[in-house]
Amino acid sequence: MAIPDENIHPTATGNAAKVVAEHQAKQDLVFYSGWFCPFNQRVWISLEEKGIPYQYKEVNPYKKEKHFLDINPKGLVPAIEYQGKALYESLVLCEFLEEAYPNYEPLLPVDPFERAHVRLWIDHTSKTIIPSWHRILQAQSVEQQDAARQELYEAQRKLAQQVKGPYFTGKEFSLVDVANAPWVAREYILAEHRGYDRAQVGDGWSEYAERLATRESVIKTTNDKDKLQVIYDRYLRDEAQSEVAKALRAGRPLP
Amino acid sequence: MAIPDENIHPTATGNAAKVVAEHQAKQDLVFYSGWFCPFNQRVWISLEEKGIPYQYKEVNPYKKEKHFLDINPKGLVPAIEYQGKALYESLVLCEFLEEAYPNYEPLLPVDPFERAHVRLWIDHTSKTIIPSWHRILQAQSVEQQDAARQELYEAQRKLAQQVKGPYFTGKEFSLVDVANAPWVAREYILAEHRGYDRAQVGDGWSEYAERLATRESVIKTTNDKDKLQVIYDRYLRDEAQSEVAKALRAGRPLP
Repeated sequence: MAIPDENIHPTATGNAAKVVAEHQAKQDLVFYSGWFCPFNQRVWISLEEKGIPYQYKEVNPYKKEKHFLDINPKGLVPAIEYQGKALYESLVLCEFLEEAYPNYEPLLPVDPFERAHVRLWIDHTSKTIIPSWHRILQAQSVEQQDAARQELYEAQRKLAQQVKGPYFTGKEFSLVDVANAPWVAREYILAEHRGYDRAQVGDGWSEYAERLATRESVIKTTNDKDKLQVIYDRYLRDEAQSEVAKALRAGRPLP
Repeated sequence: MAIPDENIHPTATGNAAKVVAEHQAKQDLVFYSGWFCPFNQRVWISLEEKGIPYQYKEVNPYKKEKHFLDINPKGLVPAIEYQGKALYESLVLCEFLEEAYPNYEPLLPVDPFERAHVRLWIDHTSKTIIPSWHRILQAQSVEQQDAARQELYEAQRKLAQQVKGPYFTGKEFSLVDVANAPWVAREYILAEHRGYDRAQVGDGWSEYAERLATRESVIKTTNDKDKLQVIYDRYLRDEAQSEVAKALRAGRPLP
């Protein structure tokens, strides 16, 4: 039987720790975060890209503070507190930041068709890239790993073919880039343990992925590799007990 | 082996046929539709609720017209053509209609927090209600049907507890209502074949579901039961070959 994730490092480390230290002052918007979570990193990247003032609070999954559970009974992160109320779900939060902070750096184009095009490829990311990514990570047999790796290549290739360059919509960094960056920045784990090779995707994926992984907001919200590795080791043995890990094991949609 | 869906009735019938007849004139926005598809009905309900002028074109899945495939190579419906370009995915289309037609009846609140709250419960609908709905439909053993039915009750109950009444956000019909209405209007299939009982959900679901199913835009976009039954009979035998049916069978996220 799998053991719970009780050995998780309690706070952000590396570059991310510096950003945490800079965001301790009280602000109207509180970002409730789990430093290790790629879904969480999406919101963090958005906050950094947009330049929204925020207060960072790490949520210890084993010691959730009463106020957090009062406003967010499910206790899910990433979450934000805004005017005393909580919202969660990474992509809902990214859209919320666009609408609640219209005078900050936008991550969606202005034109309605272009906005829909961005959402279409975020949808592709959610439905094909992310599930394939986690499937290859948790797959235990060589056959399952091979199949999942091919699926991931194919899903990333479809996205790569839509990238105008340097970023998805062209010059501007957008929510498609935000939605993919946390996983792209962790591809080295699949490369080291699952035979993943960025170059096999083709159609410019390597260059696009490198651009995402080296974007300032992505680097700033990245933690020490060794701390992250402890968590991913559990996924690689298919022992992780996160909601994502359990859903994938049960053949259910990712939460 | 399952047979393909070649016996599908080629055009809308009943109330829906009348609406189709009224929307044949050329318009800037073309709605490429599959009359039988609940995802498709979401977009149709939105168009009717908002009062947007649109031209209805039925897509025969076995004889897709060249122009449609030119602008939408995957050939997916629902799709819309707008300024010579295509968009697809029901929820992306619903958001697009809000943004491209700001002077028509809104289906999202104005306040950013309320908009995010709506998107959160659309997300719940996509991730829990719809997969459970299709799981119970396709489940062949009594045990699987029982388990899926309990999951569906629980998923609908969570939504019911958030309904302000009469509609999700209160007085105004919103995209949460749109996202659920097509399945609610087809609950009678689960009741007749899978022992589903609306009243078992509790927390006001019966009353909410009745309000959605009798909403004018929902009734207007509803087809003859016997034509729909032919399609659902294939799902009930788990022989359907739609993307949704296949994804569910493979334990994958719904497309």
